[in-house]
Amino acid sequence: MARVTRQHLVRRLTPDGWTRRSDRIAVEEPLEIRIGGEPFAVTMRTPGDDIDLINGYCFAEGIVAAADQIATARYCDGVGPDGLNTYNVLDVALAVGVAPPDPGLRRNVLTSSACGVCGSVSIDQVMSRVGEPLEPKPQLPAQLIIDAPQLLRRRQKTFASTGGVHAAGLLGLDGELLCVREDVGRHNAVDKVIGWALREGRLPLSEVILVVSGRASFELTQKATLAGIPALVAVSAPSSLAVELADRAGLTLVGFVRGESMNVYTHPDRIVA
Amino acid sequence: MARVTRQHLVRRLTPDGWTRRSDRIAVEEPLEIRIGGEPFAVTMRTPGDDIDLINGYCFAEGIVAAADQIATARYCDGVGPDGLNTYNVLDVALAVGVAPPDPGLRRNVLTSSACGVCGSVSIDQVMSRVGEPLEPKPQLPAQLIIDAPQLLRRRQKTFASTGGVHAAGLLGLDGELLCVREDVGRHNAVDKVIGWALREGRLPLSEVILVVSGRASFELTQKATLAGIPALVAVSAPSSLAVELADRAGLTLVGFVRGESMNVYTHPDRIVA
Repeated sequence: MARVTRQHLVRRLTPDGWTRRSDRIAVEEPLEIRIGGEPFAVTMRTPGDDIDLINGYCFAEGIVAAADQIATARYCDGVGPDGLNTYNVLDVALAVGVAPPDPGLRRNVLTSSACGVCGSVSIDQVMSRVGEPLEPKPQLPAQLIIDAPQLLRRRQKTFASTGGVHAAGLLGLDGELLCVREDVGRHNAVDKVIGWALREGRLPLSEVILVVSGRASFELTQKATLAGIPALVAVSAPSSLAVELADRAGLTLVGFVRGESMNVYTHPDRIVA
Repeated sequence: MARVTRQHLVRRLTPDGWTRRSDRIAVEEPLEIRIGGEPFAVTMRTPGDDIDLINGYCFAEGIVAAADQIATARYCDGVGPDGLNTYNVLDVALAVGVAPPDPGLRRNVLTSSACGVCGSVSIDQVMSRVGEPLEPKPQLPAQLIIDAPQLLRRRQKTFASTGGVHAAGLLGLDGELLCVREDVGRHNAVDKVIGWALREGRLPLSEVILVVSGRASFELTQKATLAGIPALVAVSAPSSLAVELADRAGLTLVGFVRGESMNVYTHPDRIVA
């Protein structure tokens, strides 16, 4: 159950060239919350303190007002593809007299495998939509990736005036930023640039880098993968599930692009120094 | 429609004392996406490029694969409480032959006012659950708030090793951190600390400061308000809707706590320098 972080072999590029090192990344896994046996919500979270999480979640959603309104909360005993309990499904039984939640509050409850959700199932769902992993091309100049956050930053007008928004940008291989969007929600910023590309008839974005101002989560990696983007470049850290999906999908995932250095988590072969 | 940022009068505390200044904050407003007339999702976003947003959203959710599968997307012509169009409800009509989305994909669609959602309706929903705004007490020492991010940082073990997680902490008025949780999702980190307090029988948290490692969104402010917390202290910027809710709810909202300075967005009277 101590799955809060895990090791990952990273290729690091600095002005002195490529090195390999073992990096520690934060674990991201889906948690399915079932209430009275019914799937209620799936949230991407870092495992640990899940009982606190579902207490706080049910309180914030107005389902319970006191701890004793939750009679029991226990992990389902189903197993994942590897035959082990995923510890990613929590079954909540409300106390007698506590009304079940309004179905309108449900979210993201499409998953219905008997064993419940786990990271590999989430990845399978994405891969079933994209079909094959991306092919190796195109080649990506390392300097373009190094420069990407600065190019984005110059276009982050709202961030410059507020410090309070994320940004996403579509960067062409010629160094031109095709589209930049800012939003208080980073998933919205990414939806906006990919939605722009969809409207412009530019999908799949097979010759474009997606640059984001923050971290790289599973959700952002999923959006990049579905749009056929070959590389996701983040200023900050990726999550474990982002790395796992990028690996499967053939996506080059780059994080911690700072100064003249970067960490490449998956598919470094595309990058030419 | 140019509602990307707005001005807000901030009280700023530095070692030289209090000053007032006008600050620019990023706007956060709900967007309700209706598909075929049915409420499908509500997402908190920064207004602007909403057509790109719903294109990208519908693509990521697998509802459409090409732009021409959306026949029309237009703002509802209903009005908000002030008699003006909120531009917060987009009605999407799918092209003939495009299957409507699985109802299991719906999220956060409880709101059902005829005019659609707007920020003040979201705030009304929170206030209807908490009843009265918080009373002025307790008094909060300015130095405690100044120290809060450092105290939290010392307990952010996972951040220290990965750089990839948010943290939330419950800080007692005696300077003791009662509970710290880290998570790839900042809403999860807050749910975990409040869920811990719920289980411990400590709600309402009327003598506790909630400290968060990032920005202060509407969602985090809502969770703090519902838990009866008198002050939310963020290392970074708040959104417009976080400020509006904090104002209504009687919550002291502090942002940009860096070095010996802080910006107080609402209810500064509680803070004693």
